[in-house]
Amino acid sequence: MTVSPAPVTTKAIRPRLLLGPGPSPVSDRILEAISRPTVGHLDPQFLAILDDVSDRLRHLFGTANPTTYAVSGTGSAGMEAALVNVLEPGDEIIIGVNGYFGLRLADMARRMGAEVIEVPAEWGGIVDSDRLVEVHRSNPGARALALVHAETSTGARQPLDEIGDYMRDQETLFILDAVTALGGIPVEVDAHAVDICYAGTQKCVGAPPGLAPITFSSRAIERIRTRDSPVASWYLDVSLISSYLGSERRYHHTAPINSFYGLHEALTVIEEEGLEECFDRHERVGGLLQAELADRGFTPFTDPAHRLPQLNAVRLPEGREEAPPRAALLRDHGIEVGGGLGPAKGSVWRIGLMGQGARESVVERLLTAIDDVLRSPA
Amino acid sequence: MTVSPAPVTTKAIRPRLLLGPGPSPVSDRILEAISRPTVGHLDPQFLAILDDVSDRLRHLFGTANPTTYAVSGTGSAGMEAALVNVLEPGDEIIIGVNGYFGLRLADMARRMGAEVIEVPAEWGGIVDSDRLVEVHRSNPGARALALVHAETSTGARQPLDEIGDYMRDQETLFILDAVTALGGIPVEVDAHAVDICYAGTQKCVGAPPGLAPITFSSRAIERIRTRDSPVASWYLDVSLISSYLGSERRYHHTAPINSFYGLHEALTVIEEEGLEECFDRHERVGGLLQAELADRGFTPFTDPAHRLPQLNAVRLPEGREEAPPRAALLRDHGIEVGGGLGPAKGSVWRIGLMGQGARESVVERLLTAIDDVLRSPA
Repeated sequence: MTVSPAPVTTKAIRPRLLLGPGPSPVSDRILEAISRPTVGHLDPQFLAILDDVSDRLRHLFGTANPTTYAVSGTGSAGMEAALVNVLEPGDEIIIGVNGYFGLRLADMARRMGAEVIEVPAEWGGIVDSDRLVEVHRSNPGARALALVHAETSTGARQPLDEIGDYMRDQETLFILDAVTALGGIPVEVDAHAVDICYAGTQKCVGAPPGLAPITFSSRAIERIRTRDSPVASWYLDVSLISSYLGSERRYHHTAPINSFYGLHEALTVIEEEGLEECFDRHERVGGLLQAELADRGFTPFTDPAHRLPQLNAVRLPEGREEAPPRAALLRDHGIEVGGGLGPAKGSVWRIGLMGQGARESVVERLLTAIDDVLRSPA
Repeated sequence: MTVSPAPVTTKAIRPRLLLGPGPSPVSDRILEAISRPTVGHLDPQFLAILDDVSDRLRHLFGTANPTTYAVSGTGSAGMEAALVNVLEPGDEIIIGVNGYFGLRLADMARRMGAEVIEVPAEWGGIVDSDRLVEVHRSNPGARALALVHAETSTGARQPLDEIGDYMRDQETLFILDAVTALGGIPVEVDAHAVDICYAGTQKCVGAPPGLAPITFSSRAIERIRTRDSPVASWYLDVSLISSYLGSERRYHHTAPINSFYGLHEALTVIEEEGLEECFDRHERVGGLLQAELADRGFTPFTDPAHRLPQLNAVRLPEGREEAPPRAALLRDHGIEVGGGLGPAKGSVWRIGLMGQGARESVVERLLTAIDDVLRSPA
């Protein structure tokens, strides 16, 4: 006798406590918002949501850029949109590479036919600002310089004061990856003279994955206007999308309506809390976790001077493999934490306390579970 | 005294009856599915949903292609994925252009550096199969030939028997846009020797917009494997995505988890009804609307021999402007129908009866509303 397998259904999905590198926990309030009635992408009701999302994103990005919206794709689509709009074949781009997402930027740019000048740094460390300036001085004609604000693969926080000051006076466009930064630590697009900044929704913003907030400075828009060749991607071409976002409301593609509902609600939640309070909470809760993990023999993978509060890459206590207790956390406690990438693979956990995951009660629940799964001998 | 405007909130979204060119009505069952708890993109619970979506999409596409999945973007991202994976700069592509989406294919291909050979046809008509064969015989080295199965801008249904038979023996890859076709009329990828077929979720499939079902034949995959240059888009590169879909489960990007829940549920709904029954329903209900509109003095924009049941482009009765009664339908009856695009702009309505919109009761409600808004003199 054979037993036929149970049909796969979303009804059976058991909730998890999402403490990996993303997605982060999505609150019931946001899940409720995404289930509101789908309406058309030209419906005045939706256009009001769309405009409000742009307003709220400007606040989060610390910018007055008119061209601020959400790309209809995940954070990586945002990365691709940032690059493809400004790069033309043969253009030079300087990229700081201190982790997986710096490598991804370089890979994408090369596929677009750009000459990539990598400024490497150790995984877990930051990219040296003086070194960046030096490389730019040797390549002053570079079309763009790109950095990762919060490296999701290592938990490193890239300082931007010095390089921002320098970039302000350059022709070269300054591109910033804020996928894991936005909503968790201050992102100051205008103050740091950033020309293009993109993020994700499923990290510190607290919405499900599927959209990529992005903003373009007027300098970036001007550069796009004066390109020699059309933007290689029709789907990500900011000029076409601007005709839909602007008063023309010209059809480009059908926006993912319900995903916008979720992003709108998540941004509302952040505004209600207050942006400063939200950053403080991430800072405080991340610090608590870091201290507690140190007490338990975990050691930071990241340079201690540059640790993000919201994404903690840590080596397990001496003699511990990382995969079996990580599997036990998911199986026995319903808690997801991430494994390492690249050189951190096999020895590191990445613990995200992002968005609604950045709560003292969450840290308590996680520590209880960690103590349980590490109780059994290594 | 100034009154501050009410805050924008998704709570206030009033449902509409979506009878435009998409999105189509999303049932409560599917809205409920998308609001299930967000889990991680490597969570075994999600991977089971992902695999099941691929299985069900194979059924809908009429294919056994292993490489069948949903692109993390809307239908236009599916179009871009189909082209960018196979085209290299200088490649020739033959594109049938009998409406807006044929033009979009041509625009995208040119941006990728391809030489586009357009085979034009009248808007509202179909692309002549003999003409396509003739153009291909003059350009036998073309990398691809692309057609739109269901032209959303005109409501025309492109016949595929002849061209499919011809393409089976050619080196040239056969690309098919099934955005508005999938789930509404039979899509026979294997029977018509189609190499790449893409669709949307927000038309006859009945899920919210945000994903693009796509399938690649082994011939297409082999072509991609032997490209001279890497695929220009990292985000849409099928080889990278396949490492995530396959047993490796290698991280590519964070899938839009909740959108997949919705697509999974929508595909389940179609399977429960039965694919043939679903096509019959679209056929029957579309026919009913066409007859009733003819009685009211509407005339088809589309060649009567090639009308789609699910997307009806119609000219209004003599002497009627299209925009005012369309606005009245939305305002007074909560019903969305679409205006025309291109040469159909200003004189045409596009009425979609797609997915859950393809119901006799929906047609009744629409006709009552149309009678009401047309009661006032032109």
